[in-house]
Amino acid sequence: MPQLQTDVAIVGAGPAGLMLAHLLHVAGIDSVVIDNRSHDDIATTHRAGILEAASVRMLETPGIDSRVHTAGHRHDGIDIRVDGISHPLHFPDLVGESVWLYPQNEIFVDLAAARARTGRPTFHSVTDTRLSAIDSESPSVHAVTEDGEQLTITARYVVGADGSRGPSRASIPDSTRQRYFHEYPFAWFGILCEAPPSHEVLVYSRSPRGFALISQRSESVQRMYFQTPPGTDAADWSDDRIWSELQARVAGPDGFELKTGPIIDKTVLPFRSAVTEPMQHGSLFLAGDSAHTVPPTGAKGLNLAFADVAVLAPALIAALRDADAEALAGYSQTAVARVWKAQNFSYQMTRMLHTDETADPFETKRSLGELRSILGSEHGRRYLAECYTGWPQG
Amino acid sequence: MPQLQTDVAIVGAGPAGLMLAHLLHVAGIDSVVIDNRSHDDIATTHRAGILEAASVRMLETPGIDSRVHTAGHRHDGIDIRVDGISHPLHFPDLVGESVWLYPQNEIFVDLAAARARTGRPTFHSVTDTRLSAIDSESPSVHAVTEDGEQLTITARYVVGADGSRGPSRASIPDSTRQRYFHEYPFAWFGILCEAPPSHEVLVYSRSPRGFALISQRSESVQRMYFQTPPGTDAADWSDDRIWSELQARVAGPDGFELKTGPIIDKTVLPFRSAVTEPMQHGSLFLAGDSAHTVPPTGAKGLNLAFADVAVLAPALIAALRDADAEALAGYSQTAVARVWKAQNFSYQMTRMLHTDETADPFETKRSLGELRSILGSEHGRRYLAECYTGWPQG
Ligand SMILES: Cc1cc2nc3c(=O)[nH]c(=O)nc-3n(C[C@H](O)[C@H](O)[C@H](O)COP(=O)(O)OP(=O)(O)OC[C@H]3O[C@@H](n4cnc5c(N)ncnc54)[C@H](O)[C@@H]3O)c2cc1C
Ligand SMILES: Cc1cc2nc3c(=O)[nH]c(=O)nc-3n(C[C@H](O)[C@H](O)[C@H](O)COP(=O)(O)OP(=O)(O)OC[C@H]3O[C@@H](n4cnc5c(N)ncnc54)[C@H](O)[C@@H]3O)c2cc1C
Repeated sequence: MPQLQTDVAIVGAGPAGLMLAHLLHVAGIDSVVIDNRSHDDIATTHRAGILEAASVRMLETPGIDSRVHTAGHRHDGIDIRVDGISHPLHFPDLVGESVWLYPQNEIFVDLAAARARTGRPTFHSVTDTRLSAIDSESPSVHAVTEDGEQLTITARYVVGADGSRGPSRASIPDSTRQRYFHEYPFAWFGILCEAPPSHEVLVYSRSPRGFALISQRSESVQRMYFQTPPGTDAADWSDDRIWSELQARVAGPDGFELKTGPIIDKTVLPFRSAVTEPMQHGSLFLAGDSAHTVPPTGAKGLNLAFADVAVLAPALIAALRDADAEALAGYSQTAVARVWKAQNFSYQMTRMLHTDETADPFETKRSLGELRSILGSEHGRRYLAECYTGWPQG
Repeated sequence: MPQLQTDVAIVGAGPAGLMLAHLLHVAGIDSVVIDNRSHDDIATTHRAGILEAASVRMLETPGIDSRVHTAGHRHDGIDIRVDGISHPLHFPDLVGESVWLYPQNEIFVDLAAARARTGRPTFHSVTDTRLSAIDSESPSVHAVTEDGEQLTITARYVVGADGSRGPSRASIPDSTRQRYFHEYPFAWFGILCEAPPSHEVLVYSRSPRGFALISQRSESVQRMYFQTPPGTDAADWSDDRIWSELQARVAGPDGFELKTGPIIDKTVLPFRSAVTEPMQHGSLFLAGDSAHTVPPTGAKGLNLAFADVAVLAPALIAALRDADAEALAGYSQTAVARVWKAQNFSYQMTRMLHTDETADPFETKRSLGELRSILGSEHGRRYLAECYTGWPQG
């Protein structure tokens, strides 16, 4: 039964957990990481794809050797289509920034390799994760390893980077924690298809039939989504039906046509917003999806996880290396300010771009007015571009 | 029984009706105006107070001789307080524009005097207003004059500028008209008080106790509002209670204190948004509140009435003087685009600044995130300033 002692025990080897582990390592702070999934499982799960410039800069941290600049694609904007009319937003012109298309599973591969090079332990495929003594100065994380051994990691701090369903959040006593939650009246039907890109940048399309997002993944595989009612069964949708629905939602007088190909994956994503406050309790700190989830419309989930880490890493380093715990004490307050901006942006993009059958006709017209008002204004376009490319970190 | 023949019959001597009558007169187009209220009644009704720069420019039209620049006050911004912290927005710095504080009843006095100088008729205190033959090329407006005489005005066009409760809107057949409506879960308690200004510009305050607006009227009389539940009875509010509530909603670490004085008027305003589309049918054209009402948070009501007229006047002139009815055919489409921007802005300001007891805790935090996101961004502040000072007309 391995008993490990470290500076920071990290629950979760997603983007938040592994990026944190690396930044701590660079500063000479030790960590142990555990995850209940296998390396290969995480490496083949398709999730986020768009990185803010600040997230890319984090991947440029020495020692990560990320392939973001070789395998990723810089995107200089997005295209917002309203009833078939294109409104291209050019981010460098608007705010002097760009975003990068670089899939989350590739980020994982980069970060996991960096972690492996440090020689510090990551335990995959653990079970029965449990936190203890988080009110004390020597909290522990317990789990059962892949080999069935009981693992106990004792640390000065524990970071819960275990995603939206991990156990860390619930370790904070109910009485000191508030959960904010919003459920949206729609879902996204997502496909992966073997086809060339239909457009150079992401196309967000509002149409009377509902929202569609045309995004890219690689030269030969694309990711597309369209709004459906919650509870949609992917099995009800033949490939033909999917293509005609997607095409109908982007069609316009410019003759925009999707490049089609075999559909190799179909998933239905629920649409939820959640925030837990505070994001810390005693010796436990939450980062990423464990504290907050956003609907994917604003492409903020992964970026928000990185932004938390950009605040948390220096705060942990100051506390552990320089015995200065002030920034750590203020972690939640600093991080959560950005979280609510991102929640608002994700909500706003969602509401402006989707059709809501539960809304009154006033709301449908008003949200179209909101979209037209922003797109019709230089200041509005800059504001939207700034939200999309991301606010300064830290 | 007077039978009048004119180019344009105008129902309503509010800002929309009288401004339109004047712009037509300047172009040599004749009109007859009727209103069911008396001159003095309108001249003593306190309503809107903030004019966009473009509305001020309309008041500078030759022949109006408006006192806006002598009796009005230029406001170079607004102050948005969030939980007691001031966020001043300086409009000239942000968008190179200003707004003007100039009460609606003063505008009425200016416009009514300009109308009187043209020698063209305005019938006040009429009753039983009724429209007929609006599908034809010689529509009529019927009413009973103050002296009990039956009045019939036959014109080439009729303009319904008769406010939110006038009869014009309902003259458009139900089957061709759509009404969009939204009711907000709060009302404004408004007071007029004899006191000096508490601040140079309008103060919009979001506080946990609800919204408050500190606005000005003259050197010695001020207008203030605070959010209350719908159905609030003004009689339940003593002066002391009003002052302590207002003060509590603007209090902050900067020690901001309201200048108090005798309260000379108390009213409770309902909060509604409404839009009728199309704003025209046959020979009838709607302008101002007859087609749309906005909640007062964005200070858009009167400005939107003027903006309609800025589109409608040249369109009527082109049709009547140059026999070119194309702009007139497109009037509703042009005007309504701005209406929905203004509806959205009014809705957004309302939602960001009020506390909504019917909303879930997520929404309360999100709307605060929206406000903080905008105020924390140069682009956001410019966008808000642009919405407030108004989009280009026409
Ligand atoms: C299907 C899907 C699609 C998405 N698409 C997008 C998108 O298009 N754009 C976008 O911006 N965001 C998207 N997101 C969100 C984005 O993927 C997340 O915001 C991001 O992964 C957050 O990183 P994280 O490290 O906080 O959490 P995660 O990536 O979820 O990592 C948490 C890790 O903790 C581990 N863990 C969980 N429970 C335990 C336990 N009991 N013990 C040990 N380890 C545990 C998990 O296995 C996981 O590896 C999507 C999410 C999902 C689920
Ligand atoms: C209490 C109140 C407070 C307000 N406060 C603000 C504010 O702070 N900021 C802001 O921007 N806006 C405010 N508004 C809105 C603003 O006053 C209106 O948007 C503006 O008056 C619209 O001008 P209008 O000419 O279209 O309509 P109105 O000013 O309403 O003029 C319509 C005219 O038509 C007349 N009429 C009605 N029925 C008939 C009939 N049957 N026959 C003949 N004539 C008729 C009326 O007597 C009236 O004079 C407020 C409105 C109200 C009611």
